Amino acid sequence: MSDVELIGQTLSNALPYIQRWRGRVVVVKYGGHALDGGDGGTFATDVALLHAVGVRPVVVHGGGPQISRMMERLGKTAQFVDGLRVTDAETIGIASMVLLGEVNPALVAAIGRAGAGAVGVSGQDAGLLQVVARDQRLGFVGDVHAVDPSVVRQSLDAGQVPVVATIGSDAAGQPYNVNADAAAAAIAAALAAEKLVYLTDVEGVRRHADDPTSVVSRCTPEEVRRMLEDGSADGGMIPKLESCLAAIDAGVRSVHIIDGRRSHALLVELFTESGLGTMITGSSS
Amino acid sequence: MSDVELIGQTLSNALPYIQRWRGRVVVVKYGGHALDGGDGGTFATDVALLHAVGVRPVVVHGGGPQISRMMERLGKTAQFVDGLRVTDAETIGIASMVLLGEVNPALVAAIGRAGAGAVGVSGQDAGLLQVVARDQRLGFVGDVHAVDPSVVRQSLDAGQVPVVATIGSDAAGQPYNVNADAAAAAIAAALAAEKLVYLTDVEGVRRHADDPTSVVSRCTPEEVRRMLEDGSADGGMIPKLESCLAAIDAGVRSVHIIDGRRSHALLVELFTESGLGTMITGSSS
Amino acid sequence: MSDVELIGQTLSNALPYIQRWRGRVVVVKYGGHALDGGDGGTFATDVALLHAVGVRPVVVHGGGPQISRMMERLGKTAQFVDGLRVTDAETIGIASMVLLGEVNPALVAAIGRAGAGAVGVSGQDAGLLQVVARDQRLGFVGDVHAVDPSVVRQSLDAGQVPVVATIGSDAAGQPYNVNADAAAAAIAAALAAEKLVYLTDVEGVRRHADDPTSVVSRCTPEEVRRMLEDGSADGGMIPKLESCLAAIDAGVRSVHIIDGRRSHALLVELFTESGLGTMITGSSS
Amino acid sequence: MSDVELIGQTLSNALPYIQRWRGRVVVVKYGGHALDGGDGGTFATDVALLHAVGVRPVVVHGGGPQISRMMERLGKTAQFVDGLRVTDAETIGIASMVLLGEVNPALVAAIGRAGAGAVGVSGQDAGLLQVVARDQRLGFVGDVHAVDPSVVRQSLDAGQVPVVATIGSDAAGQPYNVNADAAAAAIAAALAAEKLVYLTDVEGVRRHADDPTSVVSRCTPEEVRRMLEDGSADGGMIPKLESCLAAIDAGVRSVHIIDGRRSHALLVELFTESGLGTMITGSSS
Amino acid sequence: MSDVELIGQTLSNALPYIQRWRGRVVVVKYGGHALDGGDGGTFATDVALLHAVGVRPVVVHGGGPQISRMMERLGKTAQFVDGLRVTDAETIGIASMVLLGEVNPALVAAIGRAGAGAVGVSGQDAGLLQVVARDQRLGFVGDVHAVDPSVVRQSLDAGQVPVVATIGSDAAGQPYNVNADAAAAAIAAALAAEKLVYLTDVEGVRRHADDPTSVVSRCTPEEVRRMLEDGSADGGMIPKLESCLAAIDAGVRSVHIIDGRRSHALLVELFTESGLGTMITGSSS
Amino acid sequence: MSDVELIGQTLSNALPYIQRWRGRVVVVKYGGHALDGGDGGTFATDVALLHAVGVRPVVVHGGGPQISRMMERLGKTAQFVDGLRVTDAETIGIASMVLLGEVNPALVAAIGRAGAGAVGVSGQDAGLLQVVARDQRLGFVGDVHAVDPSVVRQSLDAGQVPVVATIGSDAAGQPYNVNADAAAAAIAAALAAEKLVYLTDVEGVRRHADDPTSVVSRCTPEEVRRMLEDGSADGGMIPKLESCLAAIDAGVRSVHIIDGRRSHALLVELFTESGLGTMITGSSS
Repeated sequence: MSDVELIGQTLSNALPYIQRWRGRVVVVKYGGHALDGGDGGTFATDVALLHAVGVRPVVVHGGGPQISRMMERLGKTAQFVDGLRVTDAETIGIASMVLLGEVNPALVAAIGRAGAGAVGVSGQDAGLLQVVARDQRLGFVGDVHAVDPSVVRQSLDAGQVPVVATIGSDAAGQPYNVNADAAAAAIAAALAAEKLVYLTDVEGVRRHADDPTSVVSRCTPEEVRRMLEDGSADGGMIPKLESCLAAIDAGVRSVHIIDGRRSHALLVELFTESGLGTMITGSSS
Repeated sequence: MSDVELIGQTLSNALPYIQRWRGRVVVVKYGGHALDGGDGGTFATDVALLHAVGVRPVVVHGGGPQISRMMERLGKTAQFVDGLRVTDAETIGIASMVLLGEVNPALVAAIGRAGAGAVGVSGQDAGLLQVVARDQRLGFVGDVHAVDPSVVRQSLDAGQVPVVATIGSDAAGQPYNVNADAAAAAIAAALAAEKLVYLTDVEGVRRHADDPTSVVSRCTPEEVRRMLEDGSADGGMIPKLESCLAAIDAGVRSVHIIDGRRSHALLVELFTESGLGTMITGSSS
Repeated sequence: MSDVELIGQTLSNALPYIQRWRGRVVVVKYGGHALDGGDGGTFATDVALLHAVGVRPVVVHGGGPQISRMMERLGKTAQFVDGLRVTDAETIGIASMVLLGEVNPALVAAIGRAGAGAVGVSGQDAGLLQVVARDQRLGFVGDVHAVDPSVVRQSLDAGQVPVVATIGSDAAGQPYNVNADAAAAAIAAALAAEKLVYLTDVEGVRRHADDPTSVVSRCTPEEVRRMLEDGSADGGMIPKLESCLAAIDAGVRSVHIIDGRRSHALLVELFTESGLGTMITGSSS
Repeated sequence: MSDVELIGQTLSNALPYIQRWRGRVVVVKYGGHALDGGDGGTFATDVALLHAVGVRPVVVHGGGPQISRMMERLGKTAQFVDGLRVTDAETIGIASMVLLGEVNPALVAAIGRAGAGAVGVSGQDAGLLQVVARDQRLGFVGDVHAVDPSVVRQSLDAGQVPVVATIGSDAAGQPYNVNADAAAAAIAAALAAEKLVYLTDVEGVRRHADDPTSVVSRCTPEEVRRMLEDGSADGGMIPKLESCLAAIDAGVRSVHIIDGRRSHALLVELFTESGLGTMITGSSS
Repeated sequence: MSDVELIGQTLSNALPYIQRWRGRVVVVKYGGHALDGGDGGTFATDVALLHAVGVRPVVVHGGGPQISRMMERLGKTAQFVDGLRVTDAETIGIASMVLLGEVNPALVAAIGRAGAGAVGVSGQDAGLLQVVARDQRLGFVGDVHAVDPSVVRQSLDAGQVPVVATIGSDAAGQPYNVNADAAAAAIAAALAAEKLVYLTDVEGVRRHADDPTSVVSRCTPEEVRRMLEDGSADGGMIPKLESCLAAIDAGVRSVHIIDGRRSHALLVELFTESGLGTMITGSSS
Repeated sequence: MSDVELIGQTLSNALPYIQRWRGRVVVVKYGGHALDGGDGGTFATDVALLHAVGVRPVVVHGGGPQISRMMERLGKTAQFVDGLRVTDAETIGIASMVLLGEVNPALVAAIGRAGAGAVGVSGQDAGLLQVVARDQRLGFVGDVHAVDPSVVRQSLDAGQVPVVATIGSDAAGQPYNVNADAAAAAIAAALAAEKLVYLTDVEGVRRHADDPTSVVSRCTPEEVRRMLEDGSADGGMIPKLESCLAAIDAGVRSVHIIDGRRSHALLVELFTESGLGTMITGSSS
């Protein structure tokens, strides 16, 4: 096959996938680690390609490493309660600054440079992420109890890519830090998204936590539940898997956990037969 | 580069082209010769991919060889005036049957199988191709004098691929045969199309008619005019080049003459840097 | 009464009917026999008048006699299985050519000349008539198993008169011949039409098949069922009556079987107190 | 021709007129005299028929005789200045009551009974008829100086027949009596109406005021101007003719002066070749 | 507090009420007594302010005193049946003239002068108030049996203030006089209004008919029912209270009976904490 | 006057202003100083009241003092070129964090608590503030050269209050700090705003810089130009006055410079006759 024939063939092979995901909402959780370099450079163009072929991507991000770095620079010492980090007033202020003022605009700018109009969105905007405090002793750490996705829909309807920073607020307007994995699942559920994709720094879900060759490419919510129950899930993966199950239960059609360190991971996962990493699919899809 | 990386890269390379042509109307003239086999099999999937990524393709077709074949089967002998074939009442009846009842539904079905809703359109529908007789002695051979593209727009707005058979009608509703190259140019002009693509059985426009190595990849309307004036244009190419100029003059941004016998010719032309065949571009684009 | 007073009175008498049918969909099955001459000349202007006063007519046609004639011209001998005509690949090709390329454009042109924008539609367009083979031995004879009326709605919403040729297709895009009476009933049902009118070459439904004076002007679905069961229905009328029942059961408000050989039969049926032929009305209307 | 054939033929003959006036605004001035009996009984059904076939009628009416009658009942003696009747505060009150409370609802009810939703509109509603006093000595007699037709458009867009009583108001909200012929012309101009029809109690415009056989069936604005200048116009017709010219100059396509005492005068004028009375047509139509 | 601070504070205090009633329909019944003078002068500006801050007011009015006055002027003697006034043909004619031709345009003009586009509406327009005769012996006194609020909605959607005169009509188009309190309740119900406000000439509902200090500021439908049953309701208030209950039962959120003789009664009732008069609130609000 | 009458009167007095500004865009520049306390507490409720009565407020803010404070905390020493502060990569990062992550969400939360849905917007979103570097030596200090207000319009059309942080970006997506006074003027111009209001910490524009009693309540652009030319303008006021002129020249109807330290300054300025501070009005308004 000549070069141009190969190109034609590759594009043509993507046809059924493009037709299938066209017009559908795909929520992509992009991790703070990914932001720090590596092959993350293809993320913004991948999002722009999804957008260009008619998929409706929503980017959700946290920024843990960046927040820690800024706290250190400001000489802020972390406090702990029962081993959990406390988010006091100063810390939530720093988190807000870093997420909304550093990480979010960097992503908006990168996606914009790739040719897709992107818009920064805070979880505090127009009731997007409404939270309650998880535990008074932890301070301003919030659990999502309601989502008003209208500000995100508005961007989607205007043909833009919304990029959401996961600061929520309570009924009094007080800002809270929200776990980005859980926030992404809640937003995907509220949008009745087709897919929720976690870009992580692992290759996928391992059937056995300590066996790197046991990555599964497809599994059911029942299998995930079993892994969580019988202790075979990796410790760091547990909250992510719980978010996956919540999203599937709320009607998201499939959740993908893939290796964000790979080039064009997002495109390969969505537009090829083989895909990458692990896909968890609800029974009805 | 691994295989999946190559796929990711290929899709990613197409991004700027997809962004550029998104939402734009591209009129594709598909020749009757192409319908008879060869590698034409990728045409329908190529059209479906354009459609899937948000381009708005309009297919225009003739069917000369198929009409000749049916005339032969019906024992109809061609008549000539000054060396030109006469389209008498029986001939236009046969042309109508073949184009509307054989060629058009075959294309509609093929594009439908590739996943894009296609709709057959006759030039007689709702004033699409309004013609006047070219020369009384030639019978029902018509020149387009007005186009009402609303029935085509209606299909585009409904997200369908209109497939146009080039039978026009005069003010009294009498059907006429219309040259498909000219009809495609007129429709492209009426739709203010971004592109008009001629899928032919040659490699492109030759600077010198008898030098197969002189295919030009890009030229201006002025150069085309010069070729027509100084006699360097190939005889069979002359009417097509005149249609190209008419389309460019009426505001179509570029006209492409490419080799429809190549696999995925349409995709390669629109979505790669190098392209295929010859592109004629108006001065302002 | 002076002449102009008579005219004023006639128009005024039509007022309640115009008000009643305004905006409603009326599917008219026009037979191939009617196309061959006689007083059929008023059909197109009648359709245009319906359209002009705000009724939304949909024309559905077959073309049996025209297909037979073309088969004869092409020296094609009919084959039979258990006494039923077989539609082999060549025959469906001929039927397609005749219906889409001869009968349909003739009707589109005639209605257009009467001043109503008409658009030819094939049952193959965008899934309009989705069929399954009736019996493998009969070849490409299809029964409608699903209707996607969106391409017809699109024309209606654009203020046009859709003219439907009854070639359907199966899931693989293979064309099939479909009985036009059944197709008209299926389309009327899918559009939730107010009325389905069969223009035939008889005066109406006879209570007793061989008594020409027994034409009934109004009957219920129950009476029709009884005629079919007790054998009093005329043999040629049986499939038409079955289509009527199917349409009524699917929600069409009334079905009319009238004599298409009468001048302005359609207008008289819809816009006068007395009407023509037979009207079958569902219980709730 | 049989009876039903005659009916069919009559309806069919109206087709080109229905197609031509469909969707167009026709302002009909209905005189107070007409309201008092005679054959006026067909007016409401005629308006309903126009409405039913898609014309957009607007009815404008005065009510001179009814006002005079009520003034007499209330023992109100008319006052005059230079031979012109003075409209003092009491008189405008009576005119308002009679037009808005007697004539207008009677017309609304009659058109409603004929099956067309009608809505009463006062010239005072939302700035419809904005007037200035003609002459302080005449009291509340106003000349239209601006028209805001939005309240009328609103009814038309809702598919209703607006029925306008010609009481206007000045900038301070004070009501004024407005000549209904002039008001109808001003409203027709503001709506860019296709036609303005005056239903009167004469047969049309006479070329020579005192020759009843000299009624002209068609004339140009220039001819009307000449009649006004050379004194051949009938005294009572002069203000009406001036309103006609104003309407034509403001873009109304044609003005008709017809005999409202004839049955179905409106239908005959609009839907037959011959028409009734006099039509004045601008040069460009 | 300085003067400007006081003004700022007053406006600011109204904020929660403006936010709460914004976009809601408020039907205001304005009595004929109120029209005769007193402090009624602030009514039109109050309505205009409601309109300006985004509330959607609908004004409903009767005009008993004005009708009586006109009957007297016309020398018309009232007739009675069982002590109830008979509305014969002449009386309904007078009522129509007075309500539609005197009271209604006066209110439309006043609200217009206050800067809100107002439109007069008759209960006869497009089926707004459909009535049946209450008792043949009473003549044209009608009870509302159906409401088609579309003509009112149309005005609201066009940003206007509809002002409704309570003349209804029966199926034959015959006009009837309708009690304005009952009509206001029926219209409020049909519009699913937020509030129905009766502007009266008393201070509110008294718990004990003859104790002026017993005005209640808030009560439930149950309490109203009890007052009606145990005879503690004031005679003149009984029909009004029955209308209140009908409106609440039909889904209106609250009904207010306030003293229309107070300056800016409407504003104070809607935009302050304390309010005026009596509010009856359904259990679910 | 009783208390409730006073309230009624105050609201009623605001009517003409509410009617005048309804539906109009008012851009309010809120200064960083104002955010630091004082009577600034009424700002958010004032914005919510504007929003509630149908004005369309857009809030634009900087945050100089907050940025300086954070730089100090991070031990960042300011650098200067020709006496102007240099914004190096680290500084723009800090400015971004403070404006987007601290000041902006605080305002969004406050307005939300006052009952108006507010949405944070960055000048980097979807091309809102497109800048060029002012002077390479100053680093990332940008001048607005183009505004794409669609992201702001989108919020306004969704009924929200957009709150804009004035970080812009250049063609490569690099963020720049933009003077908030100039940004507010550019946004007001792009939105064709009715008004641009500067909430400052002075009482208004003084005719003579050092005479506190010389505050002018109204002046023309010509007078402002003269003050700038003859040196009578206060040094700190000069850039603000230049922004005012730019806005007026670009079509903003009036610019207001008022004392943000006063309670309800915004309401008093917009909704009372006297107003506060200085209004500069273009000649045509």
